[in-house]
Order: sequence, then C-alpha cells, then structure tokens
Amino acid sequence: MTGRPPVAGLRWADNGSATLSGALLDLADRLDRRFRTLARRWDATDMRFPALIPAAALERIDYFRSFPHLVTFPACLDAVEDNLERFCAGDPVTADGQVRPSRLGPIRDVLTPAVCYHLYHHHTGARFAAPAYFTATGTCFRREDSYLPLERQWSFTMRELVCIGPAATTHLFLEQVRADVDTLVTELGLPSLWTVAADPFFRPSRNPKYLMQRIDPTKHELVFDDRLAIVSANLHHDHFGRAFDLTSTVDGAPVHTACVAFGLERWLAAIVHQHGPAPAGWPAVTGP
Amino acid sequence: MTGRPPVAGLRWADNGSATLSGALLDLADRLDRRFRTLARRWDATDMRFPALIPAAALERIDYFRSFPHLVTFPACLDAVEDNLERFCAGDPVTADGQVRPSRLGPIRDVLTPAVCYHLYHHHTGARFAAPAYFTATGTCFRREDSYLPLERQWSFTMRELVCIGPAATTHLFLEQVRADVDTLVTELGLPSLWTVAADPFFRPSRNPKYLMQRIDPTKHELVFDDRLAIVSANLHHDHFGRAFDLTSTVDGAPVHTACVAFGLERWLAAIVHQHGPAPAGWPAVTGP
Repeated sequence: MTGRPPVAGLRWADNGSATLSGALLDLADRLDRRFRTLARRWDATDMRFPALIPAAALERIDYFRSFPHLVTFPACLDAVEDNLERFCAGDPVTADGQVRPSRLGPIRDVLTPAVCYHLYHHHTGARFAAPAYFTATGTCFRREDSYLPLERQWSFTMRELVCIGPAATTHLFLEQVRADVDTLVTELGLPSLWTVAADPFFRPSRNPKYLMQRIDPTKHELVFDDRLAIVSANLHHDHFGRAFDLTSTVDGAPVHTACVAFGLERWLAAIVHQHGPAPAGWPAVTGP
Repeated sequence: MTGRPPVAGLRWADNGSATLSGALLDLADRLDRRFRTLARRWDATDMRFPALIPAAALERIDYFRSFPHLVTFPACLDAVEDNLERFCAGDPVTADGQVRPSRLGPIRDVLTPAVCYHLYHHHTGARFAAPAYFTATGTCFRREDSYLPLERQWSFTMRELVCIGPAATTHLFLEQVRADVDTLVTELGLPSLWTVAADPFFRPSRNPKYLMQRIDPTKHELVFDDRLAIVSANLHHDHFGRAFDLTSTVDGAPVHTACVAFGLERWLAAIVHQHGPAPAGWPAVTGP
C-alpha cells in the first residue's frame, strides 16, 4: 500500500493474502449478500464447494497446459513413519521461513482456481431438461509474480452466477446479469466500463484457445477506474458441456454454459479507492 | 456413507471434502450465525483470515514436529519458463488422476490447520491493556489416513471464539462458553458430554507436550453420541503469549489465551444422525 493511506480493518501479508476485520469485513459480507440478490432473479441454487478440486477434473479442460503458472497444489508429506521422522529430525523450517519438506506424497488435487469449475465437475454426466441457474462463493487460489492488497492476491474470494442451458439462454443470462451489475456499480458510485478481455493463458500467442478468444470474444470484464477488473462475464459455448458430458434432454446435444464472476476483494479495493479509506464514506450496500 | 441413507444436499468426494447445497447449506449458515451469537456476550471482534499462514508463524510453536502427519502445504511449480514448459510438454496428470509436477518452487506457507493460530500470529508483539475477545471462521486443512463425510474431512470449516487476557479471565471465558454450548446442544436435541481430550500429536508418547496434556488437562471436547467431537475448548496458559510475544501492559507478563472451536460439518453430521437425513426433521437453529 505504498503511498496510500492505511485502510481500516485491512492487514496485508507478504504471502499475497489479506486479513479483514471490523467495518471492512462487514462491507465484504454486505457486498456478497448484494451479489446473491442478483442471483434471485434466476431462482439460482446456492452451493458451497470445497477448496480442493481433483486434478483429473481440471485435466478434462486441459487446464494445466493453459495455466501452469497459476496453479497451487495441496501437497502433504508422504505419511510413512520414517519419512515424517526425517522431516522432524531436521529443521522443518529454515531461519528465513522456507519449509524443508521430506518426501512429498502423491498430488491428486488442486486448490480451486475458480468456483464454477466445481459446478461442471459436480454435474459430470448430468442431463438437463430445462435451463438451470446456480450461485456459489469460495476461496480461489492463483499464484502470481507479485501481489497487491485486495487487488491481486494468491488467495481471494469469488462469487459466481452460472447458467446452464441452450445457447440463446446463456446469452440472455449474460445480458441481464451485466445490466443488473451496471445498476449496482451506479448505485455504489463506482465508475466502470465493460471491455473485451482474454484469459491469462501461459504463452498466449502459442495457445489456440487464446487465439480463438481474440477472434471470437467470449470474455468481458467490468473494469473499474480504467485499471481494475471487478467482474468477468464469460460465455463458454459448449466447452464445459462437452468436457463434462452435460447434455440437454431436448436435443441430446452438449449444453451451453455462461458465468459471471465477482472478485470480492477487488470490490473492496474499488470502494476504498473511490470513497476513501474511512468507513464513514462508504456506500451502504443494502440489499432488497 | 456406506449403510447410511443419503443426506439431502450433501455430495461427498474421494478427496475428503464435501459439497453442500439446499437445506443442508442453509442449516450450515444458520448454525454458524448461531455460533456467532455466542460471541456477542464477549463483544468479540469478528475477523476473516486467509487460507494460508506463513510456515514461520507455525514454527514458533513447533507445530511441524508435533503434527507433521496433518500438514498440507500450498505448492506451486517453479515459475521459470522452461520449468513450466517441461510440465506442459509431458502429461501433467496421469490417467489415474495423479499430478506429475515439474520442479516445485520454494514452500513458505501452510494451509491453515486451525483458525486461531492466525490470531496470535496477527497480534505478534502486541501489548494488551485489557482482556480481548475475538471470533473468526475459516476453512481448515488436516490430512488424515481416511476420511468420512462431514465427520473427518481434509478441508473443513471451523468457527472459533478466542479470549486473550489474564489466566483467571481465560478460565471464566471457557466456563461460560461451555455453559452456553451446553444450552445450545440441549436446544438442538444433541446428546453430548464434555470429556478430557488430547491433541493428535505425532508419536504422542515421545512428545513432552502430549505428556503435559495428560498430567494437566488443557483440552476438553464436547462429544456427541459418545463418538464425535463437535466442539473443543482449549486452555493454552501462556503458551501462545510467549511464542508470539503477546504481553499484558498490567504486569508485563505474557498473556494467557483460550479458545473454543466448533467443527461446522460435524454439527451437520450430528444433526443428521440425531434427527434424520430429511430437512423436515431438523431443528430450526434460530438465533436471538
């Protein structure tokens, strides 16, 4: 936060993560409740997913070759007695805070990089007779080269609204949610504009998926203050429908999906930037 | 869930984690709000900690030698371009779902094994002029040899109430919270008894801390149905006060601390076990 005034209720750590308390935590909770009210229009099913997702689920969408630089794995010591003994016998942590693990056990999971991957994985093989709407929040993990309080964190909170249905339904869903989000940013006094965006692929110019996104834009971000994306709206076509065998009972074809993702800490950053670090200046963020 | 009827709104995964939806998710939210009402008596400060805690913080309390079998580390690929290329060039995930990482980068953090460690770390070096009370919830991670839905999970939700103050204050705090919890389990119709317990140390008989706990019991668990601990109440004496340099301005001595931890998913398990898998049979769990 060099050059910026301290924010009440925010403690930032070198490891790219934030601790919230007091009025800032209260604002975070009120914002999330406000995002959830946007899901009511769709009578969305509320779900709570774990922090861990099987690597095999993300392999279905070739996640690892697209985003190897972002992935965080949950790794445990191989729990064989003599391996644990070996860890304890040395210095488990060096003087400068680095862990000296003995042999790690097999890694089979990933710390969730986005909430909605869980949803498609959860429904693997499902048949949909009608459009379905979901909402979920969770902690997501993305390793970055550098971090910035509330704006770019190793672990952060994502609220998502997801639509599963025919192509036209997913288009209408994105249009309506984007309109509702526009109303919300106006209400909160956060000057923001929708722009075409691309996912942060590894070696983008060599990734056909990135090239496709440039030709056929499927990702839009709501950018606050010309610099901070606080919402992303994503049209996946039948990408996840095919990958997770989600089909429509109407025509037997893979379903289409779309999601809108809110980066909760970034909304806090936007409000603090726009309305000042003191809670007295923050908008009320009341839900209907 | 072999031999048990399915629970509405619960999906269990091999990786020791649960997905909640519908009435079960609603019950989880209501339970957590009810736990928070117990914190109101103390005018407790609400805090939200990240999922990651620096390894150096846990090293201060010799956590790694005590619980090496439980630890989960967040591990990332060394982000050097050719190391990421190597990961992508192979098969990142084997056919049976195991990740084949290329070189991992340095590990400096741990996935939080308990919420209250954050609180002591957060206050490192602080001076306390009066007793202080806190509450926080978060996802915790403990690797186990085997898992059981809602009862023993790799990742689970913990709500804690913490007292920092003189020894007598921490004793009174535990006594009062335990009485409030007794009222709550009676209200919810969950037959439970407090028992003396010990932390799940690695090689307990060779750990002086375990032996101390046997001589001077500092941990009590509220055990449901003679088998499932749903709350733990812990007296830490000045252990964390000394480790994190938390001192009293009154006498300049290290403060004492105590915590009460609620395992949210275990409360769901208890309610489902006692009142059946159908939401209609569940208690209301309304807060004041």
